[in-house]
Amino acid sequence: MASNAKQLQDRLQYQFSDPQLLTLALSHRSCGSNNNERLEFLGDAVLGMAISSFLFQRFPEAREGDLSRIRSQVVRAESLAEIARKLDLGPELLLGPGEMKSGGHRRDSILGDTVEALLGAVFLDQGLVAVEACVQNWFGASLNTLTLDTPVKDAKTALQEWLQARGKPLPEYRVVKTEGEDHSRLFTMSCKIDAVDETAEATASSRRKAEQLVAEKLVKKLENI
Amino acid sequence: MASNAKQLQDRLQYQFSDPQLLTLALSHRSCGSNNNERLEFLGDAVLGMAISSFLFQRFPEAREGDLSRIRSQVVRAESLAEIARKLDLGPELLLGPGEMKSGGHRRDSILGDTVEALLGAVFLDQGLVAVEACVQNWFGASLNTLTLDTPVKDAKTALQEWLQARGKPLPEYRVVKTEGEDHSRLFTMSCKIDAVDETAEATASSRRKAEQLVAEKLVKKLENI
Repeated sequence: MASNAKQLQDRLQYQFSDPQLLTLALSHRSCGSNNNERLEFLGDAVLGMAISSFLFQRFPEAREGDLSRIRSQVVRAESLAEIARKLDLGPELLLGPGEMKSGGHRRDSILGDTVEALLGAVFLDQGLVAVEACVQNWFGASLNTLTLDTPVKDAKTALQEWLQARGKPLPEYRVVKTEGEDHSRLFTMSCKIDAVDETAEATASSRRKAEQLVAEKLVKKLENI
Repeated sequence: MASNAKQLQDRLQYQFSDPQLLTLALSHRSCGSNNNERLEFLGDAVLGMAISSFLFQRFPEAREGDLSRIRSQVVRAESLAEIARKLDLGPELLLGPGEMKSGGHRRDSILGDTVEALLGAVFLDQGLVAVEACVQNWFGASLNTLTLDTPVKDAKTALQEWLQARGKPLPEYRVVKTEGEDHSRLFTMSCKIDAVDETAEATASSRRKAEQLVAEKLVKKLENI
């Protein structure tokens, strides 16, 4: 285990019963076959469930679309990397020489994955209740200040910028349908990006939210192109 | 609650402490604003975590890529619909008149979503341990006969058929890189579908598995086109 494991566990506000789990969670795949990828697989699911359960209780009136939107914000790689920085995980990462040299301990994806791996390790170590406590401690203020109106990190802007940078026409959002009565209306919006032959569609409780969800889907697709 | 709730709970091998949760889990959104969409949101995460935890323990030597591949098979909509049929959920669904008429109780997506909603309800009713018992009972044999070599439902074939049906050229898979030593080699494959300007990439412990993962990603993308 890292020599400064005590300080790290103090920052995590969690003491491992099995300290080897901590070491494994910090081990990036660049340092060998005994790495944190399996824990990350588990931790991703554990985190998704802890956040889903939290949001479900926290917003008893929210619709599924809004809960999904907020969840994807909370667990996005950038948010996890930010938490990793707050916990000062960077210097604790166990990296192979190549990653070490190329600044892997500062890379968002590696940092975020490590947060997931740590949650997977906590789950194995002491179960779901311990995970929920860690999530509360680590995500802290950002969880407790969430509101249904928390602006999504602006996917529409991101999409527009992506297209403009490539000299493509701006996206057009269309109403596919509206459902429900006045106080519980649901809007389904779609958007087709001809330039890359991609379409997405999403439903939410306002046009604005549905458009953001559509834009998020498209941004994700474009990232894979 | 449905009049035959007792028989249903016998089939589910689960007795709800709060029977209203059962009713809610069976209520499709077509029957009004008090529906199972929030439970489905929760249940999707709960199921993901229960399966992830099961696979993590069951395959202590499996790599993350293989675990993800098996998980996506287990929780795919078709698998969930199959479970719903085994539990004979169709006749229990609470549907609006439109869905009722158009055979909503036989539709895969509605059936699968209901299984998720039921697991969300069980989680609220009695927690994760109860969920894990239900998953074992409902998924049963299909979980316990899984092996790392369980063939993926053939995404490569599906992709090929999709392209052929549209007169497009067949997909070509390329090795992007291979990593690791002989006994733990990792293959990263990619495939670009020029006809729809889509590319995907995936890593697994064999070329065949990586190709299947790539094909799965592409099939998902094509479903959205």
